[in-house]
Amino acid sequence: MNIASYIQHTFGTNEPLPFEVKQHSFAKKHIITNIGDVEQNIYYLTSGIVEAAMLKDGDERIVDFFFPGQFFAAYTSFLTRKAADVYLRCLTDCTIEAMPYQHLTDAYKTSLITNQLGRHLTETVYLARTQREKDFLTKSAEQRYIELLQNRPEIIEQIQVNKVAKYLGIHPESLSRLRKEINT
Amino acid sequence: MNIASYIQHTFGTNEPLPFEVKQHSFAKKHIITNIGDVEQNIYYLTSGIVEAAMLKDGDERIVDFFFPGQFFAAYTSFLTRKAADVYLRCLTDCTIEAMPYQHLTDAYKTSLITNQLGRHLTETVYLARTQREKDFLTKSAEQRYIELLQNRPEIIEQIQVNKVAKYLGIHPESLSRLRKEINT
Repeated sequence: MNIASYIQHTFGTNEPLPFEVKQHSFAKKHIITNIGDVEQNIYYLTSGIVEAAMLKDGDERIVDFFFPGQFFAAYTSFLTRKAADVYLRCLTDCTIEAMPYQHLTDAYKTSLITNQLGRHLTETVYLARTQREKDFLTKSAEQRYIELLQNRPEIIEQIQVNKVAKYLGIHPESLSRLRKEINT
Repeated sequence: MNIASYIQHTFGTNEPLPFEVKQHSFAKKHIITNIGDVEQNIYYLTSGIVEAAMLKDGDERIVDFFFPGQFFAAYTSFLTRKAADVYLRCLTDCTIEAMPYQHLTDAYKTSLITNQLGRHLTETVYLARTQREKDFLTKSAEQRYIELLQNRPEIIEQIQVNKVAKYLGIHPESLSRLRKEINT
């Protein structure tokens, strides 16, 4: 899957894309966008795993993991053209497609499919963000772990425990204990 | 200002709107959307003030205030078609315009301007939500009050103190103390 086939599948059109898509290959540990950068692209992951993380009081907080078939970006920075407070890092070797800011912004002026895509992506990040905020306010760590296991098993299966713990906002030892309790 | 003139002003087009807009007048205290409802519209406020609030452990938390010229909705419910966890209430007599869900969704399939509007509104709520979340994590109540005074003075001027306190997440007495300190 790539951006063109994602659009075809989601919106049922195979008209040519009215913006440029750039291909990149990055090695494991490469930082795609760093804290302080202004985000220049929206990315689509074609292979590999990417994490989005931020620093709070010097500690790393993992905000999300991305798998092939997902879009990602330091989206607040992309929209506001201000410095990002999040970084995007390759957890494995990755191949991605990038839609540059200026190309997208130009296409937004006249292109139906580009606006459909932009609206759809923004709705998706809005819902993900509000759901995560709500989960942290209303659910225990155990509940959040069980739901992660049900809804996004690829995170539990493919990401190392200390990173999953940082994503759930708990100590790695607490997560190991939870895993044992649930597996017995 | 109304939805048609907002679109004309923001996107520089005066083509006829490809969706229905319904006019409503509501009395003070009317609840436009309640907790448990599925949101049926996106609203545009033409006159009056509306608050969006939720309940946490039985206490009211005010999430936002809307003034004329702003769009609002229980947007997560609108997008997911699930029960709202927020309510929208008129703080004064209000006149609003409403864009019904089915009309918008149909127009999204073919209309450039409707997708431009939907993308723009979603970007706006996304940025407002992430900014508010960040403010609560990183700024003191005093900082948040000072920024409210600078950025949205209409809230301080037109909304009663106990509601502003619920919006800032502090006790009304703390807010009164802050106001005195800042005014002296």
